[in-house]
Amino acid sequence: MQILPDNITNLIDEFSKLPSVGPKSAERMVFYLLATGDADQFGRVMMNLKNGLTRCSSCKNYATEELCPICSSSSRSSEIIAVVSNPMDIVAIERTGLFRGQYHILHGVISPIDGVGPDDLEIDSLLTRVGVVEPDEIILATNPNIEGETTSIYISRKLLTQGYQGKISKLAHGLPIGADLEYADQLTLSRALDNRQAF
Amino acid sequence: MQILPDNITNLIDEFSKLPSVGPKSAERMVFYLLATGDADQFGRVMMNLKNGLTRCSSCKNYATEELCPICSSSSRSSEIIAVVSNPMDIVAIERTGLFRGQYHILHGVISPIDGVGPDDLEIDSLLTRVGVVEPDEIILATNPNIEGETTSIYISRKLLTQGYQGKISKLAHGLPIGADLEYADQLTLSRALDNRQAF
Repeated sequence: MQILPDNITNLIDEFSKLPSVGPKSAERMVFYLLATGDADQFGRVMMNLKNGLTRCSSCKNYATEELCPICSSSSRSSEIIAVVSNPMDIVAIERTGLFRGQYHILHGVISPIDGVGPDDLEIDSLLTRVGVVEPDEIILATNPNIEGETTSIYISRKLLTQGYQGKISKLAHGLPIGADLEYADQLTLSRALDNRQAF
Repeated sequence: MQILPDNITNLIDEFSKLPSVGPKSAERMVFYLLATGDADQFGRVMMNLKNGLTRCSSCKNYATEELCPICSSSSRSSEIIAVVSNPMDIVAIERTGLFRGQYHILHGVISPIDGVGPDDLEIDSLLTRVGVVEPDEIILATNPNIEGETTSIYISRKLLTQGYQGKISKLAHGLPIGADLEYADQLTLSRALDNRQAF
């Protein structure tokens, strides 16, 4: 016997498809929307998500114009490009207020297990862009995990192969600020020791 | 500088309103939809959520007809009514396959801290229904926590006040199957001792 109407179970199914949302959480979300939320507005905003949405022709971030606000800003230097895997990484870096260059968004990382190869990412567009702009420095700012490191190594080789002459750098590894030495993992502590700095 | 287009941040805002979804999870969900999900279909299903949705005139569960499938089924006895706080509780009880009676859904519990009083729940409709149907037994199957117990106590008093003559019961408390005695909380173990049964 079907206990709940299709309207409800269909929406639970849709929520269950989202990353890290199990069937129980999906149910809670739908019943929240039924009881107190505005499902109509939520639905409208969701259907509008991809409306007029494109990728910045330069950095490949999501944008509504030919160029995103960062790439079209005159206060950002095109001499230094930070390569990140996802748009949210930009938000994190912008929060530091320390970076005045531009970005390039790969939209993922090389991950054979998920069937993601170099051709599925914005790597060709990066190489073309670097060939045209010839920036002074490229920061490979992918996540410090296997997929991220693999992707960075792949890109750095491609850059060197196509004759890029500028600097290639990566983010520093070490203990995060506020961390407890006692609980630091072995790998992070090894890197922090290797890269120790003058006091 | 606005890094992400409004389409994206608006949807992140909507997801953030959901229970137990923080801004980080909301971002992950939206970027999942952008990359691989079908936001249009999700949006359509969401806008359709409340379309033609009503409450069963008898048990107050969400339904698309005057009566829900359980209340309109001839194989379910109206002599025993299980009172639950939410529709999902029905799904849990139905999974046991042991209950052949009907339900009554309160759509919440008495919780002064959240501003929910008896009048916000389907308690009046339960009292009316019990007065008409006069069932043999009412199982007060709210959650075993303060709000749930309070709600059950309130309902049982109201039932007695209006002259209900049948049985009023509640679900048994004790150790859950598969539990580890060592990790059982004090209250559960006390109840399990109090209600110990002949071997």
